[in-house]
Amino acid sequence: MSAAVRAAVLERFEQPLAIREFPEPEGVGPGEALVRVEIAGICGTDVHLWLGQLPIALPVILGHESAGRVERLGPGLERDWRGQTLAVGDRVTWASSISCGQCYYCRLKRQPTRCLERKAYGISYTASEAPHLRGGYAEKILLRAGTAIFRIPDNLPSDAVVGAGCALTTALHGLERAPLQHGDIVVIQGTGPVGLAALAVARESGASKIVAVGGPPHRLQLARDFGADATIDIALYPERAERLAAVLAETSPYGADYVIECTGIPEVVNEGLDYCRDGAHYLVLGQYANAGNISFNPHTITRKQLRLSGSWGFEPRHVHAALELLSRGQWARRFAGGITHRFALGDADQALQHVRHWSGGKTVITP
Amino acid sequence: MSAAVRAAVLERFEQPLAIREFPEPEGVGPGEALVRVEIAGICGTDVHLWLGQLPIALPVILGHESAGRVERLGPGLERDWRGQTLAVGDRVTWASSISCGQCYYCRLKRQPTRCLERKAYGISYTASEAPHLRGGYAEKILLRAGTAIFRIPDNLPSDAVVGAGCALTTALHGLERAPLQHGDIVVIQGTGPVGLAALAVARESGASKIVAVGGPPHRLQLARDFGADATIDIALYPERAERLAAVLAETSPYGADYVIECTGIPEVVNEGLDYCRDGAHYLVLGQYANAGNISFNPHTITRKQLRLSGSWGFEPRHVHAALELLSRGQWARRFAGGITHRFALGDADQALQHVRHWSGGKTVITP
Amino acid sequence: MSAAVRAAVLERFEQPLAIREFPEPEGVGPGEALVRVEIAGICGTDVHLWLGQLPIALPVILGHESAGRVERLGPGLERDWRGQTLAVGDRVTWASSISCGQCYYCRLKRQPTRCLERKAYGISYTASEAPHLRGGYAEKILLRAGTAIFRIPDNLPSDAVVGAGCALTTALHGLERAPLQHGDIVVIQGTGPVGLAALAVARESGASKIVAVGGPPHRLQLARDFGADATIDIALYPERAERLAAVLAETSPYGADYVIECTGIPEVVNEGLDYCRDGAHYLVLGQYANAGNISFNPHTITRKQLRLSGSWGFEPRHVHAALELLSRGQWARRFAGGITHRFALGDADQALQHVRHWSGGKTVITP
Amino acid sequence: MSAAVRAAVLERFEQPLAIREFPEPEGVGPGEALVRVEIAGICGTDVHLWLGQLPIALPVILGHESAGRVERLGPGLERDWRGQTLAVGDRVTWASSISCGQCYYCRLKRQPTRCLERKAYGISYTASEAPHLRGGYAEKILLRAGTAIFRIPDNLPSDAVVGAGCALTTALHGLERAPLQHGDIVVIQGTGPVGLAALAVARESGASKIVAVGGPPHRLQLARDFGADATIDIALYPERAERLAAVLAETSPYGADYVIECTGIPEVVNEGLDYCRDGAHYLVLGQYANAGNISFNPHTITRKQLRLSGSWGFEPRHVHAALELLSRGQWARRFAGGITHRFALGDADQALQHVRHWSGGKTVITP
Repeated sequence: MSAAVRAAVLERFEQPLAIREFPEPEGVGPGEALVRVEIAGICGTDVHLWLGQLPIALPVILGHESAGRVERLGPGLERDWRGQTLAVGDRVTWASSISCGQCYYCRLKRQPTRCLERKAYGISYTASEAPHLRGGYAEKILLRAGTAIFRIPDNLPSDAVVGAGCALTTALHGLERAPLQHGDIVVIQGTGPVGLAALAVARESGASKIVAVGGPPHRLQLARDFGADATIDIALYPERAERLAAVLAETSPYGADYVIECTGIPEVVNEGLDYCRDGAHYLVLGQYANAGNISFNPHTITRKQLRLSGSWGFEPRHVHAALELLSRGQWARRFAGGITHRFALGDADQALQHVRHWSGGKTVITP
Repeated sequence: MSAAVRAAVLERFEQPLAIREFPEPEGVGPGEALVRVEIAGICGTDVHLWLGQLPIALPVILGHESAGRVERLGPGLERDWRGQTLAVGDRVTWASSISCGQCYYCRLKRQPTRCLERKAYGISYTASEAPHLRGGYAEKILLRAGTAIFRIPDNLPSDAVVGAGCALTTALHGLERAPLQHGDIVVIQGTGPVGLAALAVARESGASKIVAVGGPPHRLQLARDFGADATIDIALYPERAERLAAVLAETSPYGADYVIECTGIPEVVNEGLDYCRDGAHYLVLGQYANAGNISFNPHTITRKQLRLSGSWGFEPRHVHAALELLSRGQWARRFAGGITHRFALGDADQALQHVRHWSGGKTVITP
Repeated sequence: MSAAVRAAVLERFEQPLAIREFPEPEGVGPGEALVRVEIAGICGTDVHLWLGQLPIALPVILGHESAGRVERLGPGLERDWRGQTLAVGDRVTWASSISCGQCYYCRLKRQPTRCLERKAYGISYTASEAPHLRGGYAEKILLRAGTAIFRIPDNLPSDAVVGAGCALTTALHGLERAPLQHGDIVVIQGTGPVGLAALAVARESGASKIVAVGGPPHRLQLARDFGADATIDIALYPERAERLAAVLAETSPYGADYVIECTGIPEVVNEGLDYCRDGAHYLVLGQYANAGNISFNPHTITRKQLRLSGSWGFEPRHVHAALELLSRGQWARRFAGGITHRFALGDADQALQHVRHWSGGKTVITP
Repeated sequence: MSAAVRAAVLERFEQPLAIREFPEPEGVGPGEALVRVEIAGICGTDVHLWLGQLPIALPVILGHESAGRVERLGPGLERDWRGQTLAVGDRVTWASSISCGQCYYCRLKRQPTRCLERKAYGISYTASEAPHLRGGYAEKILLRAGTAIFRIPDNLPSDAVVGAGCALTTALHGLERAPLQHGDIVVIQGTGPVGLAALAVARESGASKIVAVGGPPHRLQLARDFGADATIDIALYPERAERLAAVLAETSPYGADYVIECTGIPEVVNEGLDYCRDGAHYLVLGQYANAGNISFNPHTITRKQLRLSGSWGFEPRHVHAALELLSRGQWARRFAGGITHRFALGDADQALQHVRHWSGGKTVITP
C-alpha cells in the first residue's frame, strides 16, 4: 500500500488550516510528475482565499508557488517546458495554472490567463477528490500532464525562485501588458512581495526613478535594496494629503508617469490616481481578490486622460522570464533575502496568520 | 464708435442665459481674426458648465464649436492652420483651445490637451473682460493670435462641421490614444452626439460590428444611419441585467472587445465594464464633467485584465482629421442630418434647456 | 482494397505537374479528417515553388488554400477549431500549416508562424511518403490531427473562401503586426490576389484613402470594386518617375502614410519606399519567395525614419478573422468574383502556367 | 568696432578645414543668445559632411554638439527650454536643430525631425552669410530665437554632455520610435560613440543582455564599462560567418531579439539582419549619411518577419532625456571618460582627420 503524504488543507474559510494525510499516488500517468515539495511560498492571495474573497470550492490544499525535486516522472515526460532534459532528482518549479488551449480566450484572444477552463494548483482543485495532491502546502504534489515544469538552473537557489514567487511572474505579465517607457518616473504603492517584484521589473524596464510608498521600515529597507530611489513611510505620513505631497516632491509637481498598485487594498486606488500626472499609466496589480467597493469618480479618467490596466496571473513564458531575471545581477540574492520567515508544514496555519498581518517580507513553508 | 455685438452669456450657474451686447473690437491685432458666427453647436458640456460641474469663472459667453465667415484678419494672418490662404469672407471653423507650447505637458509629455495654460473659447474667458467676444453663442467672435483656424472646404457644409462638433474631434483623439484593432466588436454606450461621433470613428477604424445602446428611438435610427449594426433601446430593457443579456447576444457570450462610454452618466461605467470581455478596452469618453462618484470595485480591473482609457479634448490635428473624415462617404450628410433643432441667438437659453433633456439629436444656434 | 485518389504533383522544378494516383487511406486515425477537395486555389507562391525559389523536397502535391467536404472523421474529432460541431458532409476549410506548440518560437516568442517544426499542406510534405495526400491539388486530402479545421458558415460560398485564399489571411497577419492608424493614406503595390486582399484589410482597418498601383485594366477594375479610391495603371506610366508623380498626386506631396508591397518582385521595394512619406510604414507582404537581390541604400531608412515590416504566413486565428471579414458587407461577393479562371484537376499544370503570367484574377482548380 | 571670432570652416569637400575670422555680432536680437563655446564634439556625421555625403551648401562652420557659457542674452530670453532661469555666465547646451512648427511634418505628422524647414547648427547655415556664427567649431556661436537651450545642471560636467553628444539624443529618439521589450537580448553593431550611446539607452531600457560587436580593443573596453555583457572583437573574427557564430553563441541559436546598427557602413546591414532571430527588431541608427548601396534581398524581411526602423535626429525633449540619463548612476563618468582626444580650435582639421579613422573614442575641440 502507498505511503501517506501530509498536507495543510483549507477546509473552511477563516478557520485554521488542518494537517491531513493523503495516499501517495501509486502510479504516475503519462506526462505527470510527482514532486517532493522543498519550499512553498505563502502568497497574499492565500490570505484572500482563506478569507473567502475568491470563489473556490473547499477543501483545498493551498500553495501555488513552490519548488521541489522530481520524485517520479510519467511516461513521455522527458523534457521541461524549455526543452531541457528532465530527470528524477531534478530541482524544479512550475507554472501554477494550466490553460485549455482551445477556448475563446486561449485561441481567439491569446489570453490564456483568462482561459475558461483554467485551473491553478493550490486554488482550483478540491483536496477531497483523487489524486488530492494539487497544492504546494504539502510534502508532495502531483503535477498534471501539460503542466509547464521548469528545471531550475543549478546556480539559482530555490529560495530565490520562491522568494520571488508568483509576484514576480505577475509583475512581468502586468508590465508586459502595459509597458514602461524609457525614462518613466514610477511610484509603487506597497512594499510587500508584490511591490518588491514590481520594483524589480520596473527597475529592469527603463524606469528612471522609482519611489516606493509603504512600510514598515524593514520593508522599506528591502525596497531600497531592490533599487528604489526613494521610499515614503506611510507611518510618517498618516494623512493622504501628506503622502501626496511627499510623492510629488519626489516625482514632479504634476505626478509620476507610471503608478503601480501593489497593496490589494481597494481604497488606495484613488490615492494612486492622485499620484499620476495627467496622461500617466496606472497598473492595478494588487487587486487580486474581491475586497470590496470604493467610492470612485470616473471623471478623473477623462480629465486626466489616464490609462488604467489590470492583469491576471501569468503564462508559462513569464516563469521563463522570471528565471532569466533571477539569473541576472543581484536579483537572486535580493529575492532570496526577501524571505524573512520560514515555517514547518505543521505550522502552516501559523505561517498564514503571520502573512495576514502584511508586515513581513516573504514567508515560506519548508515541508 | 463701434457697433454692438450680441451674445448669450452664462452669468450664474443654473440660471437662464442672458442676451448681452458687447462693443465690436475697433481693431484686429496681429494674428487675430474677427469672425461672424453663422452656426454654433450646443455641446453637452455646455449643460455641465451651466450646472456648475466644471470649475470656470463667470460670466462666460458659451459656445466652443462654431463656424462662420471671416470679417477681418489681423496683420500676418494670411494662411490657415493647414497652410491654405485665408481671406475675408472665407468660411472657417477653429480649434476651441489654445495651448502654450512651452509647459511640462506641451513640451515634455506631448500632451497639449493638458497644457497648464490651456484656454478654450466658450469656457475659459470671462465675458466681462475685453475683448469680451470669446464664445460661439454670439454674433461675432474674436479669435486670438495662435488659434488654429481651418478654412472649410467649399463642398463641406457648415452644418456638417458643427453637427459633428467637438464630439467628433474628441472621439478621434480618444480612439487615437486607445486604438481599435481590426475586427474588434464594439459597444457604444449612448446615442447622443458623442455616441454618434464615436460610432463614426469606430466604423472608420476597423470595427467589425458596432452595437449602440441608447435611446430614444429617433436617436437609435440616427445610430443605424451612422452605421450601427445593432441598437439596443434602453427603454425596452429597463433592467441592467436585461441590457447586459441583450448586449452579449449581439457581441459574444463573453462580451465586446471594445466599449466606449458616451453618456456622461457616472453610473454607466460599471455597466460598461460588464459589457467588456476579459482583456477588453474601455474608453471613457463621456465623463467630461464632474457628475459625482460611483461605487466601484477595482478588483474588476485586475480580474478581467481590462484596459481603461480617458482622453481630454483634442488638438488642432484632430480638427484636420475631422474635416477629412467629413469629406468622405456619407459622413457630411449624416452629421448635418444629425442636427435636429435650430434656435435663434435670442433663444439660446431655450436651446440649452432643450439639450439638457438629452433626448434630441444635435441642437444649434444660428446667430 | 482502397480506391485511387488522383492528385497533381510537382516532381521537378520548372517541369509540368504530373497527375498521379495515390491509394485512399484505409483508416482515419485519431483527430484526422479525410476531406474531398471541391476547390483549390492556385497561389502565387505555388509558382515560386514551381520555380524552385523556396527550399522544399520533391515530389509535392501542391495546394495550400482549399475547401471541401468532410468524408471521414477520425476518433475524437468532433468539433472544429472554433468549437462548432463537425460531421461528415460538412463543408470545411483549414489552416495550411501546423505548428508544434513547443519550440522557441511557439512558446517563448509567440510566433507560431516561424515554428521550427512548422509543416504546410501543399508545401512541406513529400508525396512519395504515406499517406501521400497532403496537398490541395487533389481529389482528397488527409488532414493531420491538430489541423485547425473550420466549418464554413452555410451562407458563405466556398468560392469566396478560396477566392480570398491565403492572401487574405496573410494580409490580416501583416496588418496585425503593423497596424494602420485611422486616417492613413495607403498605397498598394500590386493588384493580384495579394494586393486585393491587402486592399480589403486596409479598407476595413481605417485607411482614409487607398491607391492601388498595378494592372492590367481588369485587375484595376477589381481593385476599384474592392474599394480602391484611385488606381494607377503601370502600363500608362512605364517610367518609375512617372508612377511616383502619379502616386504623389493622389496621396500628398510627401507621399503616403502606409505602403504595402504585394507584387513579389524585389525591385519594387525601392519604388515603394519612394511612395512613403517620411516616417511612413512599409509592409513587405509579397516577397514570399527568394526572387533575388536588389541594389538598396540603407541610408533611406534612417533619413526618412521609416518603419519596414514583414510577416510570414498566418495563424489559425487569422482564418477565423478572414471568415468573419468574408461574412460582412460585400466581401464574399467580391472575393468570389475575383475568381476569373477555373480548371479541372487534370489541367492543373495549365492552371499553374496561367497564374505564372500574373495577369489574371484568382485561378482555381475544381477537382 | 566688433572683435573677431575665430572658427573652423569647411570650404570645400575633402579639403582641410580653414581657420577664419568673423565679426562678433554687435547686438543680440530678441530671443537670441551669444555663447562662448567651451567644448565642441566631432561627430561621425562631420566626417560624412566633409566627404560630401550629405547635401549641404558650403562654406559651413561645422559642429552641432557643443556646450559653452552664455555671453549675451537677447530681449525676452529669460528661461531655458525647461523653464529654468537663464543668465549670462550660465553653462548651456542646445538642440542642434530648429523646426518650423508649421509644416506638414511638424503639424500633421508630429515628426519635427523631418520638418520641411529644419535647420541645424554646424550643417545648414552658410558661413558666408551674416551672422556667420552658426557652428560649434568656433570661439562663439550665435543661437537663433527659438533654439532649445538647456542650462546644464551644476553637477553635470560639460565633458559628459559633449561626450554623449548627438549620439545619445539620437539613440534616445531611435529607441523611442522602436522600443525595446523587457528582457530583450540586444546586439549592437559598432562600438564608436553611437554604439556606446545605443548601449547606454538599451541598458537603461530593459535589455537583459547586450552584446557589442566592434573594435578596436580599447573601444570594446569602453563598451564593457558602458555595460555590455559581452563584446566581440571584429579583428578576432574577420569572417562574417565567424562573427555570426560568435553572436549566436551569446544570444540564442536563433539570434537576438533586437539589433542596433551603429556603424554607418552600409554593408553591415545584411550582417545585422543575420543576427536577428525571426520577428526581431532591427534599428538602423548609424546610416546617417549616404554612403552608397548594398546588395539586399527583401525576401529576408518577409521570411523572418522582421521589423526595421530608422530615426533621424532628435527633438528638444530628447536633449532633456539625455541630461536626465547623464544625471543618473555612472553615465556622466562613463560618457566624459569616453572622450579620448582633445584638440585646440586651430587644430580642428587634425581633429576631424583623427575621427575619420573611426578608431578612437570621442574626440572634441576645446576652442
